[in-house]
Amino acid sequence: FPVFTLVRLLGLAAVAGIFYWAVHLRGGMALSTDEESKLPLFNVHPVLMLIGLVALNGEVLNLCCKCKNSFLWYSDILDTNFNGLVIFMHAALLAYKTVPGTKKLKKLVHLALQFLAMFLSLIGLWAVWKFHDERKIDHLYTLHSWLGLACVIFFSLQWATGFWTFWYPGGSRSGRASLLPWHVFFGIFIYVLAIATSVSGLLEKSIFMQSAKMIERFSTEAMFMNWLGLLLVLLGALVILAIVS
Amino acid sequence: FPVFTLVRLLGLAAVAGIFYWAVHLRGGMALSTDEESKLPLFNVHPVLMLIGLVALNGEVLNLCCKCKNSFLWYSDILDTNFNGLVIFMHAALLAYKTVPGTKKLKKLVHLALQFLAMFLSLIGLWAVWKFHDERKIDHLYTLHSWLGLACVIFFSLQWATGFWTFWYPGGSRSGRASLLPWHVFFGIFIYVLAIATSVSGLLEKSIFMQSAKMIERFSTEAMFMNWLGLLLVLLGALVILAIVS
Ligand code: HEM
Ligand code: HEM
Ligand code: HEM
Ligand code: HEM
Ligand SMILES: O=C1O[C@H]([C@@H](O)CO)C(O)=C1O
Repeated sequence: FPVFTLVRLLGLAAVAGIFYWAVHLRGGMALSTDEESKLPLFNVHPVLMLIGLVALNGEVLNLCCKCKNSFLWYSDILDTNFNGLVIFMHAALLAYKTVPGTKKLKKLVHLALQFLAMFLSLIGLWAVWKFHDERKIDHLYTLHSWLGLACVIFFSLQWATGFWTFWYPGGSRSGRASLLPWHVFFGIFIYVLAIATSVSGLLEKSIFMQSAKMIERFSTEAMFMNWLGLLLVLLGALVILAIVS
Repeated sequence: FPVFTLVRLLGLAAVAGIFYWAVHLRGGMALSTDEESKLPLFNVHPVLMLIGLVALNGEVLNLCCKCKNSFLWYSDILDTNFNGLVIFMHAALLAYKTVPGTKKLKKLVHLALQFLAMFLSLIGLWAVWKFHDERKIDHLYTLHSWLGLACVIFFSLQWATGFWTFWYPGGSRSGRASLLPWHVFFGIFIYVLAIATSVSGLLEKSIFMQSAKMIERFSTEAMFMNWLGLLLVLLGALVILAIVS
């Protein structure tokens, strides 16, 4: 049963869904706009957040289950203490099998993809921040925004410490080996957090639009957003299943 | 580092927090009320949901990390195929070490605690449903309510299949052994779902109250609810950490 194919399909479906929502139902995106509502600016936010922190990041996590029966790099790491998180470590190592090329090249792919994810999510964050400024809405008053800020900060820290430990200057062999399980654990935690944050964003956006009488409770759009939220939950469950199984 | 003590403390803090909120900030709870707002009826909902599906359920999950270095019951199950989920199986098995008494008694404790959790959550659900009826609010229009309904249904199914497989009539030995990892995986999934649902409930309640001008964006109460949401996320992360480590 190819979980990773399903994960990729669901990830694509989520990205397609949020694009459809932003472009077709919400009238499009723009990084700067003369429209008084400033809504095209807002619409950039969910799209880039979902692409960066959910789809791309999930794709990177998902790589790890592709070849879970081979242990090519295993010997590289067996010289250290194991703990319970070791199961994730296997997962991590196995990622190297899926991208062709040297170990260094594979690291570079991981590092670069996660950089792209971080970059997109920072633009997405900038867009909603600017939207709030231009519309004179307070910053950081919702639980969604708190979770979201934590998420982006953790992601950036994770990237920086990953870079520092595994790329340049890089720790000692045993240092790297003992940090890897934590790197993977936090990577998974951030992923789950990104899904919870996105779900809460969809929920509040839908409620805001209902309060503003822009959409009805049972309108097609409201139902579409609810289904998209359920899709994200399913995606998260599957990525975790893929990693632990 | 005793993660399980911390998990218990955070669980207690979350329960204390939601009680404080319902009783002190929201004016109390009642299963039937003459107040026109019907809000005391609503207030039963978050409290019972948190106690049942997050705190009690988390307590049950948490038991599994208490004695993670002993493998008393291990031999009982080793005659089957292992797969990656086996790590959770260990966790599951180890729960038996923490409650004194026979294996049967420990199963009974697990079964009974989860029954209590299910029972409380069904009353909590009934309360919000009745609240919606009496105030003539639609049912099941939010993403929160969809996630919540899925959560309660999954929890009940999990209970029923757990009972059927492991208690009465009970499957064959190999049947039980091969179902256990799935039982544990779904148990953890439901737990994470319950946390995400509760976070989304806190978020929407806060936004509803802000739209109704009952509270201000940066009021003590709004900030309190946001912190409670963050506490729940931390709790979820720790329970998962406890289980995998
Ligand atoms: C926020 C950014 C990052 C996240 C969320 C993240 C997450 C993860 C996850 C989930 C794994 C295990 C699964 C997998 O192998 O794909 C992993 C493995 C790994 N990561 Fe990261 N990572 C990030 C940035 C980095 C950076 C900048 C480096 C520097 C080179 C790095 C180095 C590694 C290494 C060496 C492994 C183990 C072997 C491997 O599979 O590539 N990570 N990371
Ligand atoms: C992991 C993904 C996401 C992160 C990290 C994130 C982060 C944030 C942050 C930090 C803010 C606060 C901006 C400010 O205070 O100026 C915000 C606002 C907002 N986001 Fe997101 N977001 C994510 C996904 C989404 C999605 C998918 C939606 C769906 C429509 C959404 C809807 C909103 C809305 C409506 C606001 C404005 C109201 C508020 O401040 O809560 N977000 N987001
Ligand atoms: C919705 C209700 C339930 C949930 C969420 C649930 C969840 C879990 C979880 C997370 C575990 C692994 C951790 C642990 O050992 O505590 C587990 C183990 C187990 N569960 Fe359940 N469970 C439920 C109901 C039941 C029922 C009704 C039975 C019937 C006897 C049952 C039988 C078992 C058995 C035999 C184990 C493995 C050994 C053990 O640790 O007790 N479960 N369950
Ligand atoms: C796992 C825990 C929870 C579950 C399973 C759950 C489930 C549900 C369900 C099924 C409904 C729909 C009732 C109807 O349509 O008549 C609902 C409504 C509601 N719940 Fe929860 N809930 C949970 C936790 C919470 C928490 C912690 C809060 C925080 C205040 C909350 C706030 C609300 C609100 C405001 C409503 C009414 C609006 C709506 O239908 O979404 N819930 N809940
Ligand atoms: O930089 C790395 O550290 C670990 C491991 O080699 C440590 O032993 C790993 O897989 C890398 O690519």
